[in-house]
Parts: sequence; C-alpha cells; structure tokens
Amino acid sequence: MKYKLTLCYDGGRYKGWQRQKNAGNTIQGKVEDTLSRILGRETEVAGCGRTDAGVHARVQICSFTAETDMSCDEILDRLRKYLPEDIGAISIERADPGFHARLSCQEKTYVYRIWNSSAPNVFERKYAYAYSNKLDIDKMRDGAKLLVGTHDFSSFSSVKKTKKSTVRSIYDIEIEKRGDLITIAVTGNGFLYNMVRIIVGTLIEIGNGSREADSIEKVFESNKRENAGFTAPANGLFLWNIKY
Amino acid sequence: MKYKLTLCYDGGRYKGWQRQKNAGNTIQGKVEDTLSRILGRETEVAGCGRTDAGVHARVQICSFTAETDMSCDEILDRLRKYLPEDIGAISIERADPGFHARLSCQEKTYVYRIWNSSAPNVFERKYAYAYSNKLDIDKMRDGAKLLVGTHDFSSFSSVKKTKKSTVRSIYDIEIEKRGDLITIAVTGNGFLYNMVRIIVGTLIEIGNGSREADSIEKVFESNKRENAGFTAPANGLFLWNIKY
Repeated sequence: MKYKLTLCYDGGRYKGWQRQKNAGNTIQGKVEDTLSRILGRETEVAGCGRTDAGVHARVQICSFTAETDMSCDEILDRLRKYLPEDIGAISIERADPGFHARLSCQEKTYVYRIWNSSAPNVFERKYAYAYSNKLDIDKMRDGAKLLVGTHDFSSFSSVKKTKKSTVRSIYDIEIEKRGDLITIAVTGNGFLYNMVRIIVGTLIEIGNGSREADSIEKVFESNKRENAGFTAPANGLFLWNIKY
Repeated sequence: MKYKLTLCYDGGRYKGWQRQKNAGNTIQGKVEDTLSRILGRETEVAGCGRTDAGVHARVQICSFTAETDMSCDEILDRLRKYLPEDIGAISIERADPGFHARLSCQEKTYVYRIWNSSAPNVFERKYAYAYSNKLDIDKMRDGAKLLVGTHDFSSFSSVKKTKKSTVRSIYDIEIEKRGDLITIAVTGNGFLYNMVRIIVGTLIEIGNGSREADSIEKVFESNKRENAGFTAPANGLFLWNIKY
C-alpha cells in the first residue's frame, strides 16, 4: 500500500532533508527511523523537495510503501507521539500505487523571508534572513521577471557540471513587502541545488543597487555560477507549497 | 540623564524579566550587565512589565539613568552588538527626568496566542500554546466582557494575600481567530502575578464548555484563586504594547 505523508519541519538543527551515509542528523533519517519503528519493518520515504541544511518546510510531502493493519489515523497519532518537536506530522492518506512524492510533483513553491530592518526581530531570527540595507522592491521585481520561464539555470546552482539537465521552468516569482518583512515566493517545476538561495542573493544585489536587473540576461548567457549573486542564508528559506 | 530603551525578547530560556538574588538567567540581569559594560559603571534598569519565566516581549520598555558622552545611536549599536541573539534592542531615546518605565505607564497590552489544531505547527511551538480541543470563540467573548472593568482580581492571581491593592482595570479584551491561530489581547492599567495567564486559562475553560461564561461573576465574588481557571502556559504569552 502506498501512502502520502505531509510534514512540516524547522530545519534549524538538521543537515538537510536527505539521509546521509555517514550518520548526520537529517530529517529523512528521523522520519524513516520513526516510521520503521511504528511499522515494525525498515521503511524508506521519498521526499518531494530535498531541502538543504538549515532550510525549513511549511509543507513537505513524502511517499512510502507499507503493509500494515494500522489505519492512517493510527499511524498519524504514533508519528505525532514519536517525531521530535521540530518535525510535525500534518496528515497522512493512502495514495495511488504509482504515486511518488518527488517524481509525481507538478510544481513546488519555495518562499524566502527577509527581515529588512536595522532593528532586530528576535522572533524572526531563525526564520528570516536579517538584512538591514535598503532594498528597491520594484527593481527586484524587474529582475525576477527575467528569471521566469524555461532556462538553463546552471549559473544559479552550486553543483558542478553533471550530465543531468540543468534546464528548469520557473512559473512565477512574487515579491511582497509587509512592514519590515519581505517575502520572495518562487514557483517552478523543479530546482537545482541552492538554486532558490542564489536567485534570492542575486535579487538582493539588484535591490541594493550593486547590480542591474538586466544583468540576469548576461548571467544566463555566461553559464557561470560566479556571475550570479551570493547564496542567501538557509534560515530564510521555506519549502512552502507542493502541487500534484 | 534619563533614557527610554525599547527591547524585544524571546523569553524561552530565561527565568523571567526580574533580576534575582541567587543568580538565575534573567532578562533584566542580561540587559543591566550589558549596559553596565557599555557605560563603564553599574547601571540599573526598570522594566515596564515584569514578565514571568518563559514569557516573551514583542515590546518591553525600560528606563535607566546614565552620565555618558555617547550618543543614543552609539549606545544602541553597542547594545545590538553585545546583547544575546534572543534579546533585541529596538530603539533608545532620551527621556524626561521624571520618566519611569513602569510607574509612568498608562496602559499595557498582553497578547496570548493559541495554536488551536490537532495538526502541529513546528514554527509556533515556542510562541503559542498548542491546544487542540474545539473552542467556542463567541462564548469566550461573553466571558471576556465580564472581565473588562475595574475589579479586585485576587481570584486571578497566584500571589498570596498581600497588603497591596489587588484592584486593577482591564480596558479591553479582544479575541480573534485567523485560521488555526487564536489571539487574546488583554489591555489594562496593570496586572497581578500570572493574571493574564489565569484569565486565558479561564477563557479556555469557557470555550471548551467546561464552565459557563457567567461563572466569572462568582469567581470575582469568591476572591479565591481555585475558583478561576488553570494557568495557561508561559510560552503563548507576549508583552505586546505599552502606552505612556
């Protein structure tokens, strides 16, 4: 039987989603260990987004296979009991046999949060990047428009050259400012390693005036990581929404 | 010279605002030690609200006296540099000689936050009380109306009988629900020890149906702490706003 599990997590103390061979505290590892204990046999989960170390998930969806007499509610209750307090089990349901959390995904939204003030906000210190310089939101939106579409995003990724395609489609980038909080919501069909954080770093450099919005075009043409902006810190990034 | 300092803090790891004789990690202690180091002489601060252990402050205002050549901006920069990451210095300004953060205060608002869902929200785990039973907001509002006004609040306080007056005025209680988050904002001229948390506990008992709204009248009449509701946990409470 295939299951679809929806989680949220505070990624602050984890080495990212993906289980690593040499131990390391990962979210996938915690979830797999907990599910294996509940179900009485080793259980692997596939996550939709492989979030980096320190990145959060408002919503993360996983799929796994299990043979059990337990109802979904019983599994959910046990997950809520045994998962650590920074990983939350939101819901669980049975899924079609062919469902795979990552491969079946149609679109994902990541949200990056910036606390844009010289005055500290202690409640955002773990959930937003504190950046105090003035940012021109209109210029950032001009830059964002040039990122939307289907492109080779290799300039916006930290991964070394691979044979795998680095072409992705970004459907939408929405930048909003409410008080001192700026949010950048990036929706697409898939993302390369560090891609959202490098996009955000590049948009911040456009917003603070250190580069022009139309520099984005040259970054794409160059296919060179060093021509894009800095990698914005992990603590401001959230896997926010997933569509199938 | 008298100064008015505005802070915010995450009270999670502190034994409350007020400095205690036998060591203990307090916010007042941290702020006094840091200011004393910056100003080069022992400096005492008076806080407007003496928040309990684990209670947060969106806004806390303090007053202190200092003789220094430093500008307000210089003091502020140093505070931001030396205060721990869970205490934030929002602003500082010179004040009238007679200003006292607590004694000059006209009204204070505390906000209590309840995460009212069976699904966990890991991002609220430190900043809201997770309470999953259904709450009837209309009944809670009926109860709140009976708390507004000038009353002897000794039934709503954990402090043993003292000679000091236990009469306080509550000007307003606003209860809002947005999605799964319920907020209870209590505005008054002053609050007894644990008073807001006991008011919230009593309103929760009204909301879940275990007591009637008009039981509030009998709680006042009895002058007995045990007739009021439970003390809601500290992590949902914020000192929110202060007026002079």
